Amino acid sequence: MGRGTPGHAQPTRRSAAASGEGDAARVDGRVRRSRDRVLTTAFELLSESGVGGFTVDEVVRRSGVAKTTIYRHWPSREALVIDAASRISAEQEVPDTGSLEGDVTAILANLGHLLGTARWSSVVPSIVDVAERDPEFAGIHGKIQRGHAAPLREVIERAVGRGLISAAADPSSMVSALIGPLYYRRWFSREPIDDQFVKTIARNVISSQRATDAPGRDTRA
Amino acid sequence: MGRGTPGHAQPTRRSAAASGEGDAARVDGRVRRSRDRVLTTAFELLSESGVGGFTVDEVVRRSGVAKTTIYRHWPSREALVIDAASRISAEQEVPDTGSLEGDVTAILANLGHLLGTARWSSVVPSIVDVAERDPEFAGIHGKIQRGHAAPLREVIERAVGRGLISAAADPSSMVSALIGPLYYRRWFSREPIDDQFVKTIARNVISSQRATDAPGRDTRA
Repeated sequence: MGRGTPGHAQPTRRSAAASGEGDAARVDGRVRRSRDRVLTTAFELLSESGVGGFTVDEVVRRSGVAKTTIYRHWPSREALVIDAASRISAEQEVPDTGSLEGDVTAILANLGHLLGTARWSSVVPSIVDVAERDPEFAGIHGKIQRGHAAPLREVIERAVGRGLISAAADPSSMVSALIGPLYYRRWFSREPIDDQFVKTIARNVISSQRATDAPGRDTRA
Repeated sequence: MGRGTPGHAQPTRRSAAASGEGDAARVDGRVRRSRDRVLTTAFELLSESGVGGFTVDEVVRRSGVAKTTIYRHWPSREALVIDAASRISAEQEVPDTGSLEGDVTAILANLGHLLGTARWSSVVPSIVDVAERDPEFAGIHGKIQRGHAAPLREVIERAVGRGLISAAADPSSMVSALIGPLYYRRWFSREPIDDQFVKTIARNVISSQRATDAPGRDTRA
């Protein structure tokens, strides 16, 4: 495996690398596209049927990607379900409106909107159900939940740092008190999540933790 | 269909009725016992396998009740699942501790305990999942949820009547704000539901709705 003489090594290696990168990029592109198609299809199927109705055969049928290719990337049905389910990540900007109440209200309003419209909100219950019996699913479920909670946690911790709420405030309890009521309405009581509800939840949770020397609710920016 | 002469009608009818009631009671007793056995078995099976793993054959195997008998009472697998699932009713006394915070804390502490220990808490996610796709299940799910919420709603409405919280308080929002955080920890974030958490949730939700002329949190009974 000669690599050329030292004098020519550099350009030779460079052009080989460039050509190799081109090939690799093309292969990577194809692999990535088929991987993406499988994941997108798998996620759609999950949305329609839940984990219980999910089969690799149906992913093959819908995606047109060969079963052998699918099993090369995901060793089992469970692995594919978990990977597809991990797309359930309500990516969301962390707002900075100048007040904690404004930030929390913005995050909850967005979450409430997603709960009412995003397809993943139909998938979540089947993840919760499987997580009840399967530790691996419980792990991915926990990851999804931490993802949903991350922006809230960030604005709460920032507010503690700014002295807007009590340093004794427990961010975990506040996150539960903020997200819980929305989840309850979406998946349990099946009541609407309207702006008024979101505002009430945000205001009450925050006012209960407000530092005594911080601005009151009517003086916020 | 002679009913006897007026003079004898009364005793004759009474003894016939008594004898008929005896037979009917015996039959009813047998029917009720086999019905109960089927429902208990079905509920156990739901707890273990969720709705997805529930089969009438397995109920037959475990209960020893004939499949024909089961189908005489429940026309379909779905009907039996729904009936068994409706046993998920956290029957609970409505406390009257003398303060809304005391009442709510007692109810939430009991609910938190049940969420951590009762077998139905493993069944609920599969009901939520099926309800996502099946209107009949959505109906039973709603009924179960209203059952869980009823004691809270009652103590809140009583407190409004007694002037302890604002007449403008929205009991539905308060119920969501009280139950939601517990459900969130049980089925989503999988964090512990301890006494401190329950007390914090109860205190914060109630203090946000306290009537301005009502006793403060430190003067309650």
